[in-house]
Amino acid sequence: MSVIAVTGIGLLATQDPELGELRDAAVLAVDGRVTWVGPSDALPEGAGEERVDAHGRCVVPGFVDSHTHLVFAGDRAEEFAARLVGLPYAAGGIRTTVEATRAATAGALEAGARRLAAEALASGTTTMEVKSGYGLTVADERRLLEIAGRLPATVATFLGAHVVPDEYTDRPDDYVDLVSGPMLDACAPLAAWCDVFCEDGAFDVAQSRAVLDAGAARGLGLRVHANQLAHGPGVALAAELGAASADHCTHVTDADAAALADAGVVATLLPAAEFSTRSPYAPARRLLDAGVTVALATDCNPGTSYTTSLPFVIALACREYRLTPAEALRAATAGGAAALRMGDAGRLSPGARADLVVLDAPGYTHLAYRPGVPLVDAVVRGGRVVYSRRATPDRRGDQGAP
Amino acid sequence: MSVIAVTGIGLLATQDPELGELRDAAVLAVDGRVTWVGPSDALPEGAGEERVDAHGRCVVPGFVDSHTHLVFAGDRAEEFAARLVGLPYAAGGIRTTVEATRAATAGALEAGARRLAAEALASGTTTMEVKSGYGLTVADERRLLEIAGRLPATVATFLGAHVVPDEYTDRPDDYVDLVSGPMLDACAPLAAWCDVFCEDGAFDVAQSRAVLDAGAARGLGLRVHANQLAHGPGVALAAELGAASADHCTHVTDADAAALADAGVVATLLPAAEFSTRSPYAPARRLLDAGVTVALATDCNPGTSYTTSLPFVIALACREYRLTPAEALRAATAGGAAALRMGDAGRLSPGARADLVVLDAPGYTHLAYRPGVPLVDAVVRGGRVVYSRRATPDRRGDQGAP
Repeated sequence: MSVIAVTGIGLLATQDPELGELRDAAVLAVDGRVTWVGPSDALPEGAGEERVDAHGRCVVPGFVDSHTHLVFAGDRAEEFAARLVGLPYAAGGIRTTVEATRAATAGALEAGARRLAAEALASGTTTMEVKSGYGLTVADERRLLEIAGRLPATVATFLGAHVVPDEYTDRPDDYVDLVSGPMLDACAPLAAWCDVFCEDGAFDVAQSRAVLDAGAARGLGLRVHANQLAHGPGVALAAELGAASADHCTHVTDADAAALADAGVVATLLPAAEFSTRSPYAPARRLLDAGVTVALATDCNPGTSYTTSLPFVIALACREYRLTPAEALRAATAGGAAALRMGDAGRLSPGARADLVVLDAPGYTHLAYRPGVPLVDAVVRGGRVVYSRRATPDRRGDQGAP
Repeated sequence: MSVIAVTGIGLLATQDPELGELRDAAVLAVDGRVTWVGPSDALPEGAGEERVDAHGRCVVPGFVDSHTHLVFAGDRAEEFAARLVGLPYAAGGIRTTVEATRAATAGALEAGARRLAAEALASGTTTMEVKSGYGLTVADERRLLEIAGRLPATVATFLGAHVVPDEYTDRPDDYVDLVSGPMLDACAPLAAWCDVFCEDGAFDVAQSRAVLDAGAARGLGLRVHANQLAHGPGVALAAELGAASADHCTHVTDADAAALADAGVVATLLPAAEFSTRSPYAPARRLLDAGVTVALATDCNPGTSYTTSLPFVIALACREYRLTPAEALRAATAGGAAALRMGDAGRLSPGARADLVVLDAPGYTHLAYRPGVPLVDAVVRGGRVVYSRRATPDRRGDQGAP
C-alpha cells in the first residue's frame, strides 16, 4: 500500500463542486487515489508514508491537456516565421510534418514525444490526450498510436482524418474510405477516441460524418476539430453526433453555442493556437454564458501551437477570453477531464486520481498574474512525486554553477 | 586567468553588426570578456580551461532587461484579478506596494529581489536595470537602492518620482522638491540613472522636468516612464532632455517617433505590461520604421507586469508588435544595452562581456515559436556558468522522483 499526504496547503482549489476551495488544507492518497481532503490539522493520525509539505502555497489538480498532437518529427519554425510577416495559416502545412514524420524512426518519434511529455509534466500537466494524424497511412497512423500508448498518462485519439495526404489529393473520397475502413480497423484497438479536422482544406461535413460514424461503429468516442479557420459545420456536426468535444470553436454563432450546450458537448478552446496563428480569439464568454462547458488545452503541435504549457494557456485565456482565473483553472482541469469524459481527473476529492500540482504561489491567480514564469514547484501523479524543482539551480541563483 | 570556451554552437546570433549570425561557431572568453568568436573548427588550440558544448543548439547574448522594479514587498494579485473583470489600471495602485514595502524588513526585501533575480537568470537575463520607487521617503528610497546594489549584475535607477505618496497628496510640489533635493542627494551616489513617471496621476511635465534636471545635475543619466496610459508630454520631454530611454511609449504620435529618432532616445517597449493591464500595444513597427532604436524589457513589478521572462516578452512582441524574431531578439539584447548605454553588453564579439544563453532550440525563432516553454538550457555570465538545467528533473521525466 502506497500512501502520500500533501500537507500545509495554503489554498486548495479542489474543483469539486461540493468541496470548493479550502484554506490550510491537506490531501491524503492511497495507492494513487485521493482518499481524504480536509483541514490540515484534521489529517488522520499517522497518515502518510510520504509527506509533501506545500509550505502554505497553492495546490491545484494536475492539468488535463485534452488536445495535443505530440507525436511528430521535424519543426516548422520557418513557416512560423513566415506567418509572422504576413503569410496566413493554411491547413496544408500539416503535410510538411507528415513528410518528416513518415521519414523518422519510431525511436526518434518516441524520444521527441517523451521530451515534450516531460516538458508538459514540468508545467503541471498530469493527463494528456495525444492524437495521431501525421502518418496518414495505415502503418504510419498505427505507429503513432503505438508510441502514444507508451507515453505515461496519455489518452490516445485516432486522427487519420487530419488532412488529405498528397497521394490522395486528386481522390479525397478514396482517402476517406481508407480512413473509415482499413485504417480504423488497424487503429481503433489502440485509441479511445476518433477525431476529424472538419474545415475547408481538410474534410467537408459529409466526409467528416463518414469518418466519425465509422469511428463510433468501432466503439470510439468522438471529437471534432471544428470552426477553427472560419465558420463551418463542424460544431453543429459535433452536437448532432454527441461528440465529447468540439475543439477550437474560434468562429461560432449563438446557434452553435446553444447546440453545444443542448448536446452536452464540451467546447475545447485553444488560445495558444490563436496566439501563434494570430487569428481572432474564440468567444469564450459567449460560450460560457450559453451554458457550454469549456475546456482549455494547448493544441501542442509543430505548426500552429508549439507549446506544452497550460499555465501559458491560462494566462492567455484570462487576457484574451476574459475568463477569471477561477474559470480558466477550472477549464484546464475539470474542463479538460469533461472533454475526455474522465470522471476521476481534474478534481481533488475522494475517489479521484491523486494528480496534483504545488504552485510556487499563494494562489492560482498567479498563473495569469505571472505570465511566462514557471510556477510549478512539484507535481504528484498517481500518488507519486514525479516532478520537483526544489533542488534545481534557479533556487540557488548565482551559487548554482553546475 | 579564467578561460571558458563555448563550442558546438549551431547558430550564434552575435548581435554584432559586422559578425552577424554564424553557424557551427564557438566563443572564447578570458576573465569575463569575449576574446574570440569564430567557426568552431578554428577555435585556437588548447583554448578553454572550461568547456561548454552547445550540442548544435542556438546561442544568443544574455538578455538585457532594461526596465524592472524588482525590490518591493507584497503582491497585488487581487488588484490584478479585479482588473480582469473590468477595473481599469490606475497609477495609484503603486501606493499599495509602497505601503507594504515600507513595512518590510531589508532582509525580506532583499530575499524577494534575489528570488526574482534568480528567476530572471533562469530565463536568460544576465543584466538587469532595477529601479527604486516603492519607498518614497529619503530613507526608504535609499534602502531600496542599497538592496539593488547588492544584487548581481544590476544597474540601479532612482525613481523617487514614481508616484506622489499619500502624505503629500495635498502638496505634490513639496514632494517634487523633496525628490529633487534631499532625496536625490541621498540616492544619487547609489544610482546610475534618474527616472520619473510622467503621466496623469503621477507627475506632470513641469514636475518631471524638475526631477530630471536635478538628476542630471548630480551626474545621473535620464530615463522617463512616458506615454503609458495616454498620450502625453513624456516622450517629447525625454527627447528634449536627451534621455537614454523613453519607456512604455504605448501612446505615441508620428511626431513623438521622429523626436525619439532625432534625439537618439531608445524606445523601451513593455508588452507584458500591456498584456497584463489589457491596454493597447505600442506601435512598435511605426517606431522602428521611423528609425528609433527599440528595446524590449519586462517592467517586472507587482502591479502591472509581474513577470521576469524576456522570452515571454519576445513572444508577445512577435505576436502583438509584429516584430520578426530577429528584431525582437535584438531589442531584448542589443536594444536593452543601448537603453542602458552599455557598449559591452547585449552582443557577443571581442571586448563584450561574456554573457550568453544556450537555448534548448536550434534557433532563436523558437523563443516566439514555443511560447510559455522554458527554453533556456544554460546561462554564462561574466565567463562563468551561472545557470544550467542539465541535471534537473524535467529532463528525466517520470524517472525524476526527488
